[in-house]
Amino acid sequence: MKTDTIAAIATPMTNSSIGIIRISGDDSLEIIEKVFKAKKKKSMKEVPSYTAHYGYAYDGDKMLDECIVLVMKGPHSYTTEDVVEINCHGGTMVMKKILEAVVKAGARPAEPGEFTKRAFLNGRIDLSEAEAVMDLIHSKNEFALKSSLKQLQGVLGDKIVSIRKKIIHSVAFIESALDDPEHYSIDGFADELKEQILEIMKELKYFLDHADNGRILKEGIQTVIVGKPNAGKSSLLNMLLGEDRAIVTDIAGTTRDALEESIQINGITLNIIDTAGIRETDDLVERMGVDRAKKLLKRADLILYVVDTSVPLTSEDTQISVLIHGKQTIALMNKSDLEPVVKAQDLKDKGFENIVEISAKEKKGLDALYDKINTMFFRGEVTFNDEIYITNVRHKNAVSNALDSLNLVLNSIEKGMPEDFFSIDLLDAYEQLGFIIGESVSEDLVNEIFSEFCMGK
Amino acid sequence: MKTDTIAAIATPMTNSSIGIIRISGDDSLEIIEKVFKAKKKKSMKEVPSYTAHYGYAYDGDKMLDECIVLVMKGPHSYTTEDVVEINCHGGTMVMKKILEAVVKAGARPAEPGEFTKRAFLNGRIDLSEAEAVMDLIHSKNEFALKSSLKQLQGVLGDKIVSIRKKIIHSVAFIESALDDPEHYSIDGFADELKEQILEIMKELKYFLDHADNGRILKEGIQTVIVGKPNAGKSSLLNMLLGEDRAIVTDIAGTTRDALEESIQINGITLNIIDTAGIRETDDLVERMGVDRAKKLLKRADLILYVVDTSVPLTSEDTQISVLIHGKQTIALMNKSDLEPVVKAQDLKDKGFENIVEISAKEKKGLDALYDKINTMFFRGEVTFNDEIYITNVRHKNAVSNALDSLNLVLNSIEKGMPEDFFSIDLLDAYEQLGFIIGESVSEDLVNEIFSEFCMGK
Repeated sequence: MKTDTIAAIATPMTNSSIGIIRISGDDSLEIIEKVFKAKKKKSMKEVPSYTAHYGYAYDGDKMLDECIVLVMKGPHSYTTEDVVEINCHGGTMVMKKILEAVVKAGARPAEPGEFTKRAFLNGRIDLSEAEAVMDLIHSKNEFALKSSLKQLQGVLGDKIVSIRKKIIHSVAFIESALDDPEHYSIDGFADELKEQILEIMKELKYFLDHADNGRILKEGIQTVIVGKPNAGKSSLLNMLLGEDRAIVTDIAGTTRDALEESIQINGITLNIIDTAGIRETDDLVERMGVDRAKKLLKRADLILYVVDTSVPLTSEDTQISVLIHGKQTIALMNKSDLEPVVKAQDLKDKGFENIVEISAKEKKGLDALYDKINTMFFRGEVTFNDEIYITNVRHKNAVSNALDSLNLVLNSIEKGMPEDFFSIDLLDAYEQLGFIIGESVSEDLVNEIFSEFCMGK
Repeated sequence: MKTDTIAAIATPMTNSSIGIIRISGDDSLEIIEKVFKAKKKKSMKEVPSYTAHYGYAYDGDKMLDECIVLVMKGPHSYTTEDVVEINCHGGTMVMKKILEAVVKAGARPAEPGEFTKRAFLNGRIDLSEAEAVMDLIHSKNEFALKSSLKQLQGVLGDKIVSIRKKIIHSVAFIESALDDPEHYSIDGFADELKEQILEIMKELKYFLDHADNGRILKEGIQTVIVGKPNAGKSSLLNMLLGEDRAIVTDIAGTTRDALEESIQINGITLNIIDTAGIRETDDLVERMGVDRAKKLLKRADLILYVVDTSVPLTSEDTQISVLIHGKQTIALMNKSDLEPVVKAQDLKDKGFENIVEISAKEKKGLDALYDKINTMFFRGEVTFNDEIYITNVRHKNAVSNALDSLNLVLNSIEKGMPEDFFSIDLLDAYEQLGFIIGESVSEDLVNEIFSEFCMGK
């Protein structure tokens, strides 16, 4: 069946050096033939795949732009269809005009994500790989980049496929044994199955346990700095922002609201919730009122509680301790360069487990702080190693549901239920895991997932 | 001499489908070899020019992205040097990381416009062609696009080169005749020269006369709508904006300030200065005060004066007439569907030459209005024909200065001055015209011109 041919502008609609109009489908070569004249008078239908051609784009007789056309014939293309990319000047008017000409020549304007959707529907990539494309584009730090790139290469998909194979194999065995007891003996299979399921569950649990690490590595640790007036909150922030190793992110759209500063240190992103109250020396609690402060603290993954060790603890410190109770907190003993009045033991007595000495003035103690954060959040494991992390909520839910179903199988085994009871829950787990790679997802879900893509992807 | 190799992100720093990192210089192939591994394990140094290659970008051992690399070897490239373009996922993080890897591998971050500057310095394009690149990218309508595309193809440059040839030929003849009077007779040459100069001046004057048309076609006609309260100003604006043939520009950055609406009709752009005072039915003059209104009207190329013909003219109309005196004005007889109290003759008596009947209510009269605008601004010539328009202020000044110098030559001829006097002014004209194509421009000016380019161009 002939597919319709789609086209879109694949670069942002902002003036820049180069713009790309991307075309995919059975008529791509037919269409490019109509809108492009190569300087060397070659027919784009006859040129080899993966070659580029200099010439001019036209709308009928009207010349539109000088461009370079890249021909990538299916199946070795992004969508597995014939793909043509027109690299033109990156002017909004030019790009629009060329897209118009391409549409006039027979293409249909693509929906957001439709190119990647075709790559998925045509079987080149699974759903987890397709989702990785957008994750990669929206990566905010090296971890996110690496993790999405790995997912894009199919590492997660392969793992899921191998687990699903084990499950379906067991289901097949049960069905066969029930159908044909003469040839397949089911005696003792429950024990075998139990062992296998425990092993699969261990793998899935590992995914789930590390999913939050993945989320935090990918999106950053929401961090709030608290402390009494003059404890050194601003100096700490400045020290963090100004540190040589810190990359203060200056990319538009990387901080999630105007109140955050995003810092990357040794591969960990700290999103410092950066309210006026924190930046200034006034007390956060006083300035914002307990309610607003509580709300702010609720969002936080990490509290940096700055203590001025050169003056005694006061009722204000008690107030802060109450406020941040139950949150992951590091107590920072600041002004460690001065004669200390407050000792580490005083803070331990107040229930603080994680204590780091710093001197914002002398810029000391940062390494100890980073080590502490790494230990608290990643068990000291932030090494960008080759583990597979799940960072996608949809995947996390699927793994969690699969675990529930496998638990039901374990229960059935414990209770000595008949084997055909196992199959139903095993198939549930199989289906849930299939959601990750798009093997059993509905058309609606597919549409929903791809609608969040950029245009031209 | 080996040139250093430059690199830049050639697409906007916004998340989108495709991003391009562009590299140019003697080491381009050496560098791509270090940061890219083709899936087919080909060396980028050995692949044919104008071929694309699928693979992965690396920073050392660290994989950064899946990409397609396009190799265009000099001299058949944008800069005439070896050019490599890495098409990666259009994420800001990814693009930055790849650029970093390319820089680590030996490239230098390019300055804005440096690729095009190299194309100019390496002699592939002249300065007018280089400037056309940015004009094309910033084109707001078809005229601007066509005009810059033509300039990009060297049409203006060729014309200037041919005029300069004539001039330098005359200078050479004068010098030869003065040096070697035995072989070259200068008798009667003054008359011949005069004729030639008059012809050149005619060509240059034509450029100058049409430069404003070019500017207006390219940038649009600054239009202000005036009229008494309830005359139908808003309805006219709505009619203009809502008209089927009108393209209300929705591209960011195309209107030059927040107070303008840009409409394109039949190839003409109207920039309607769209103040609250104009949109609403209150009287512009009353609302904004005479001073502000005057300031606004001063910027205008065109005034659309809306007259409610169903009620008599009042002192307010007189006030408006005074305000817009001396501006290009079209008086629009609105409510032509009602019984008219005001006749065309009444407006003619008040000094209005351009009168068009409209009915904003019945959406009548628009064609007559467009025809009138076309006649007033372009002598009815907006046909996107093959004339060369000068739209660049720098070029306009150069042509104007060249004309001044040629006028001095004419004066010298008239006054019967000795022939060597001619040479100086002829050489001045020659140099001035050279500015357009960059033949006699200083390095500083070159730097200034290219510094206004986009990054990566």
